Amino acid sequence: MHPKLKEHIEKIVALTEDEFAFVSKHFIRKSFKKHQFMVQRGEMVPYNYFLLSGLTKLVYTDDAEKQHILAFAMEDWWDSDFQAYYTQTKATLSMECLADTEVLCLSRDDYRALCAGLPKIEHFFLEKTIFGFLAAQRRILSLMTASTQERYEQLIRQHPSLLQRVPKTQLAAYLGVTRETLSRLSTQA
Amino acid sequence: MHPKLKEHIEKIVALTEDEFAFVSKHFIRKSFKKHQFMVQRGEMVPYNYFLLSGLTKLVYTDDAEKQHILAFAMEDWWDSDFQAYYTQTKATLSMECLADTEVLCLSRDDYRALCAGLPKIEHFFLEKTIFGFLAAQRRILSLMTASTQERYEQLIRQHPSLLQRVPKTQLAAYLGVTRETLSRLSTQA
Repeated sequence: MHPKLKEHIEKIVALTEDEFAFVSKHFIRKSFKKHQFMVQRGEMVPYNYFLLSGLTKLVYTDDAEKQHILAFAMEDWWDSDFQAYYTQTKATLSMECLADTEVLCLSRDDYRALCAGLPKIEHFFLEKTIFGFLAAQRRILSLMTASTQERYEQLIRQHPSLLQRVPKTQLAAYLGVTRETLSRLSTQA
Repeated sequence: MHPKLKEHIEKIVALTEDEFAFVSKHFIRKSFKKHQFMVQRGEMVPYNYFLLSGLTKLVYTDDAEKQHILAFAMEDWWDSDFQAYYTQTKATLSMECLADTEVLCLSRDDYRALCAGLPKIEHFFLEKTIFGFLAAQRRILSLMTASTQERYEQLIRQHPSLLQRVPKTQLAAYLGVTRETLSRLSTQA
């Protein structure tokens, strides 16, 4: 279906043409406009999304309606409200496009059918999930031990393109600081 | 090799006796005394550990030699410095026994051989890793949004036995507060 998905999977497991055709038929392609919601808080989450292009944010809104950004996603990244997706419960997060975004969508049923039909895809998802788990552990450690200045510098070092592409107010909501504090951080970095 | 491991795996995938015999031969059993280190910062991490009994803490020590506890583990839990284990690099964390601890150890080579020889074990590890990833995401959100009091109450609600088994100084290092603040939290809870 899409060469970007093939290239992405083949960083971990090699696929024959037949196998890739089998993988492809489990995905559907969708387009979203900037400001559209791919996941809406309180609703079911039918898909895990593989981004072909664009930019999204995954947001938790607290009781005081304050937004906390859990993650950004760009091309070649997977994102969803995974808790809701894997446990088939209603979303507690929302996922909103910060730019026009093209995705390949994988439903829970198609995910199961895909893994059952092609064990090496299960290996691919295990490797991706391990990477995600390790990244989450690093983020926990960073939240526990690093100053806001250090966390800003880590973010810029790991994902330099985010600085260009993500509005400053959104970067501030990811770091848990005000827009004013972020300006101070970026002049110090 | 051990009925606790079989019971643990069978919560996710059913195994025949032959399959379980195949699984078992990839693990070795070890015993550690209270205060012994299972993972030592700066050294290689040969194993992922499945705890049969006991209690461990996973610790990051910062430049000022302050200890930050990333996780506790008890019977039926897996723990290791996963970053070091999966990427075959030296440990940045240490894992220390808070009580005498019995474990089943799985080396990287045995993990690979096990997954290659029995695809349903790869499914088991994928499910466990998804659970671990979701728990890590909840912890990130909690660190971003909840007060120390709320995080203390979450911990006690999710793992009531920790309160009895883990010394108060260790609980404080997990929550990132002083021993005195923890006493105040526990009287308010």
